[in-house]
Amino acid sequence: MRIGELAQRTGVPVPTIKFYAREGLLPPGERTSPNQVRYDDTHVRRLKLIRAMLEVGGMSVTAVGQVLARMDAPDRTVHSMLGAAQSAVSRTAGDRGTPQDRERAEADVAELVRRHGWTARPRHPGWAALVQLVMTYRDLGRDDLLALLDEYASAAARLAEAELATVARVPTVDGKIETVVLGTVLGDTAMAALRRIAQENASARMSTPSA
Amino acid sequence: MRIGELAQRTGVPVPTIKFYAREGLLPPGERTSPNQVRYDDTHVRRLKLIRAMLEVGGMSVTAVGQVLARMDAPDRTVHSMLGAAQSAVSRTAGDRGTPQDRERAEADVAELVRRHGWTARPRHPGWAALVQLVMTYRDLGRDDLLALLDEYASAAARLAEAELATVARVPTVDGKIETVVLGTVLGDTAMAALRRIAQENASARMSTPSA
Repeated sequence: MRIGELAQRTGVPVPTIKFYAREGLLPPGERTSPNQVRYDDTHVRRLKLIRAMLEVGGMSVTAVGQVLARMDAPDRTVHSMLGAAQSAVSRTAGDRGTPQDRERAEADVAELVRRHGWTARPRHPGWAALVQLVMTYRDLGRDDLLALLDEYASAAARLAEAELATVARVPTVDGKIETVVLGTVLGDTAMAALRRIAQENASARMSTPSA
Repeated sequence: MRIGELAQRTGVPVPTIKFYAREGLLPPGERTSPNQVRYDDTHVRRLKLIRAMLEVGGMSVTAVGQVLARMDAPDRTVHSMLGAAQSAVSRTAGDRGTPQDRERAEADVAELVRRHGWTARPRHPGWAALVQLVMTYRDLGRDDLLALLDEYASAAARLAEAELATVARVPTVDGKIETVVLGTVLGDTAMAALRRIAQENASARMSTPSA
């Protein structure tokens, strides 16, 4: 198909398609004559995936580029795809607090991870975010909130089993890779949305006029 | 204390403190002479909270301002604070898909919410995000991922109970209000971080050289 039909089938305007191609997000089409390029269904699917990551996942164009590069790498595996997707969607918070504060928070996170039977390397983006979070709770004098981390961890463990089982059910490697990307990029959005609905319901049930 | 000591105790540079004050995030200090302003412990605490929302929660200055305005409103309640915090941290995704696609996704979300014994108004930020997500899964032909939403919803319900119980245990209204803000703003960060660690562990266990 020509670029106009590609735009029509995906709802992505032609100049935007050209921008994605220039940025390396979209593979080039097949040049069939000096001023004509042909696209196929793989371009339709790739464009839908790009829009999902940008609009629903809230990712930057740079982060989307990192994920797609890994998806297209010849040596990709499901496990390496997970690492690349996690890195692309993780923000790195500033490095605050004294070395003592940091050391204490690192020990707390190590203990939490051990309690749930996990291993985690201190370079893992999830680890770094947790250390920052523990330091923040402590800095605000809210050590009482640390107990909630065990609740989150138990929920996360159950969800990870369900997510990986979903990946296992997909027959092709291409499909598994895509599932890992969608689970990482859109899974956070899904969980955040459902947490908000659940919180509002719990809060409405518990709220009184004076609270 | 003077602004220099405030900067030292919070690790926030003086020009940044002045910027937050100009933007209305930080209440003015008490002017004790034409060129001297005095700050107290409430400013220390407020600055720590601002940094937590910006750096650990990844919020914009505008969103932080919305949350703080609601925290300081005379008619604030725990429940209205939750609504304001949820709105401030929610992104609104673009309005894609045909009216038919949207109607079908709305019906799916209504059914999901009903299955979990919740009520939700279609204007709720969590609802809008879920509708967009369901449309995206369908657009990519990945209806198989919709089943995961029930797993997320069950986990979200359990977590909301634990979070609200934590709020209930805080004795003062000021403390409850702050807990709701921290739970909304930092809770997503905590859950995302623990999901990444849990996913990596599940994936490492299940991965084989050929996958």
